[in-house]
Parts: sequence; structure tokens; C-alpha cells
Amino acid sequence: MNIYLDCIPCFLRQSIDAARKATTDTRVHEQVVREVLRLSGDLDLALPPPWVSQKINRLVVELTGVDDLYFDEKKSFNAQLMRLLPDLKSDIKKALDPLVEAAKLAIAANIIDLGAKASLSEKEIYDALRTACEVETHGDWSQFHRTLHSAEKILYLADNSGEIVADRLLIEQLGPKRVTLAVRGSAILNDATMTDAKEAGLDKIVDVIDNGSDAPGTILSDCSENFMKHFNEADVIISKGQGNFETLSEVDANIIFLFKVKCPVIGAHAGLPTGTHAMLLKSKK
Amino acid sequence: MNIYLDCIPCFLRQSIDAARKATTDTRVHEQVVREVLRLSGDLDLALPPPWVSQKINRLVVELTGVDDLYFDEKKSFNAQLMRLLPDLKSDIKKALDPLVEAAKLAIAANIIDLGAKASLSEKEIYDALRTACEVETHGDWSQFHRTLHSAEKILYLADNSGEIVADRLLIEQLGPKRVTLAVRGSAILNDATMTDAKEAGLDKIVDVIDNGSDAPGTILSDCSENFMKHFNEADVIISKGQGNFETLSEVDANIIFLFKVKCPVIGAHAGLPTGTHAMLLKSKK
Repeated sequence: MNIYLDCIPCFLRQSIDAARKATTDTRVHEQVVREVLRLSGDLDLALPPPWVSQKINRLVVELTGVDDLYFDEKKSFNAQLMRLLPDLKSDIKKALDPLVEAAKLAIAANIIDLGAKASLSEKEIYDALRTACEVETHGDWSQFHRTLHSAEKILYLADNSGEIVADRLLIEQLGPKRVTLAVRGSAILNDATMTDAKEAGLDKIVDVIDNGSDAPGTILSDCSENFMKHFNEADVIISKGQGNFETLSEVDANIIFLFKVKCPVIGAHAGLPTGTHAMLLKSKK
Repeated sequence: MNIYLDCIPCFLRQSIDAARKATTDTRVHEQVVREVLRLSGDLDLALPPPWVSQKINRLVVELTGVDDLYFDEKKSFNAQLMRLLPDLKSDIKKALDPLVEAAKLAIAANIIDLGAKASLSEKEIYDALRTACEVETHGDWSQFHRTLHSAEKILYLADNSGEIVADRLLIEQLGPKRVTLAVRGSAILNDATMTDAKEAGLDKIVDVIDNGSDAPGTILSDCSENFMKHFNEADVIISKGQGNFETLSEVDANIIFLFKVKCPVIGAHAGLPTGTHAMLLKSKK
């Protein structure tokens, strides 16, 4: 998905939020915004939107030295979801179709996205997760079952911290032996890294790799060789969240996209209204 | 009031909206946004925000030839408020303090602002106006009375079309003989120009001048000599709306600001929360 003009005000909003979170020095805030304005003025709109978010983050790190802006929030989201884990596990056990229920929960947990919304209360997250199965989720679940049934190697692309605990429940339903979990290579927004995978106990049940990139999505040209080997060898890729959808929606591979539509531009690209819980299937040509 | 970093995403949103309203040519949309990004990159933040909105409008006019983007909306707002006029008049007549009631109505009518909100329904406007006296309005009304009591010459700065019909009711309470009404020099957003003053029947009851400027506010250095004569000779200036507040809040004059706080940045500058109906008094040093 390329950059829409509507993404640009949002990039600037992200820059201001990130700069203010990193430092109280207003000169640095102004410097960050001016740099992002210059970068945006000459921007190649054919790039995916997370390319710009990556540049904004690098700029803030360079100018402030703060390299993990959402460290505290990530810890707190993981802890909150871990507390909820027994209840969520029992919701899934009781379901008629535990695999689909776990997928719906993993989609609902995609609400934990500080790129789309600057803050999020514990209650918002709790409500979203405990009502996950009641929310209508867009997607062909028979095809979902068929696609996963025949897959021997599944590469699971995590999105955010906290959310990754819900991903664990879906991975358990998939059967962890055939799954490799990929997280971001380093800190970007509240996206999950190796630390979050460990905090969610995922390193104990599944192979975890990082993608070698600090983009809030999966920009293949920016990923490590090791990640690309897993990507190319996977029978199916499960892609969580908007950032992965934005960067992979036009890549030729078998991909199951699980995400919540949190912005009208991505909604327009997916053909779905904002707020939709989406499961989209893409088959390799 | 100077430009805050938070204004910049909003300028870009305004640019996209204006470009799309003027033409369906996406190359022109992109050109407008790129120009505004360049202009913003080198922006002097000591300028008032309406300075940028003026530049955006000029750019869209230059690139598309469309010089009155909100022509239809302005006509429609005026017509709607003219239909409501008898009811509003009777609300004021019944009030214990008709002057204050008319001022509160004029503030409530400041909701009709397409710079702050891209669209507005007839019901939203109706509800805002018929409940104007019930809404708590921030301000010292005794001082308001005292300030106006002694004024021989009042310069009334209109803000938006539609809203200008409600201004007529306040001008009637003030006594039109001592009032000069000033409108914008040419079309900008849905701000009131001479055409709107005529559609509201104001040219029949009061002297109407234009300020010679196409800014959505009152940038004194951009106004005509004739306007400045009235501005300097007035005992009191009544300033309607956010744009006039943004451009005049630091000017040394006796000014009564009547506006609805529609953005958090202006709220912070005024020390009032978003949504406040405000009457602020400023005395000449």
C-alpha cells in the first residue's frame, strides 16, 4: 500500500507525539517537525506509510538519544494481558471453534496500537478482549480453516506488545511446532520485539526470530537474510496488524491478514469501514 | 497568537480538503500538499495561524482557478439562519437580559466554521442556536455591559456566513447607529464577505465595510487603510470567532472576543477547554 496524502497530517501528529514523549526541549520538538516536513515535501508516495514512521523514529532517537520511547507502556501492556490470559484461555476452550475464536481474539487485541492512538486505558483493552467473539469479524472462515489445515510451515508476524499475549493463544491453537514467530528487530512505537515475546512466554513454546528491521511493519527490503529465508519457505504467513498489512498487502505470498481497521485510509485500501475486525486471505499467484 | 507545532497537521488537513473541494485532479492535490509542506518547513512560528490558511487558499486559487470554494455552503448557511431568524428574535425578546442573550446566541452561531470542521448538518446548527442561552458561557457579563455602555463607536468584526445572521441580532441590541460591521475583503473558507452581509440584510441597518484582506482572521498589516481608520477610531471592537481571536489576542485595543473554542491549541492559548463558549474582554493599556 502506498502513501496517501491523508497519511501526511498523521505523520506530523506522530512526530509531535514522539518528540514530546522523548524530551521536554521544545527546540528539539521543532527540529523534529521541521525535518519531517522537509522529508515529506520530497516524499516518494509509492513507499508504504510505515517507511515514514521508521524515519520519524530514527530521527527522534538521533536527536534525543531515547531509543525505546514506549518501554514502560510495552511492559505494562504485556503484564496486563498476562493477567487476563487464564480468562481468555477459558473463553477459547469453551468456544465451538477454538481456532476461529483464538483468531478473533488476536484481531481484537490489535487495538493495542500506540501508532494509531496515543493512549489506551486498561478498561478499553479489557472490554475489547472479553467481547472479541461477539464482534462481527469480516472474513471467510471456511477458507481460513482450509488454508491453515494444509500448511506445514507457518510464519507468524507479531505486531504489538500486549497483543502478542493474545497471539500466543492463537499459536497454541495452530500447534506451535509448525509455527515460527517473528518480531521487530528493534524498538519502534509499541511494536513487539524479542523482549515482549519473552515476557509473553512465547520463547518457551515456539521458535522466535526477529526481522532485523526497525520499521513498524514488514518492509522486506529492510529485513534480515534469516527472516527472508523463513518468509520464503513458509507455506502460510500470518500477518498481524495494520503496519504489516500496509507493507505486505501487495507482496505475492500466501498471507492471512488479521487486524483491526483503525484508520480510514487503510480502510479504503482494504475496502472495509474503520472499526472492522478483519481477516483477509491472500493467495500466491 | 503564534503558530504551535500542533497547528501544522491541521494546516495539511485543510490543504487536502481545499484541494479536493476545488478539483478532482489528484496531481493538483499532491502539488498543493507538497507546496504547503515546503512552506511549513521554513515557517516563522511567530506568525498567527490564519496567515498559513490564507497562503493555502491563495495556492488553491492559483492552481485551480476556483476562487470561492464554499460559495454554495455560504448561501445555504445564510438561508438557513434567515429562516430561523424570527424564532431567534423571539428568544431574545423573551430574555431577562436581551443584550447578553444576543451575545450568547452570536457565540453559539460561531459553530458554523468550516475551517474547524469540514461539514456541519442543519440539525447541529439548529440545536446549537436554540440551546444557546442554556449553555454556560465563560465571561464577566457586568463588565461586558459596562464596556459597551460607554462606547460611542463600535467596530464589529464578523466571522462566518450564517453566523452573520445571528450577529445581526446582537447588532440590533447594541443599537446599529454606533456600529460599523467589517467583513473579509474576499472569499476565504466560509468567512463572511460583503455578499453575506447583504444576504443577512445587514447593509440596510448598519454601515458595512470590508477589511481588504483575504485572511481568515484580522491580520492588521494586511488590512486596508479604510479598515485601519475604523479600527483605530473605535472605542470598542467586537471580534467574532477563532480566526479573529488568533490574530488580535495580542493587539493593544479594547476588544470583546466572542467565540466558541473549537480546537485545543486555541483553548490552551485562551486558558479554556475545547467546547467553551467564550466572552473575553481585553482593555487597551
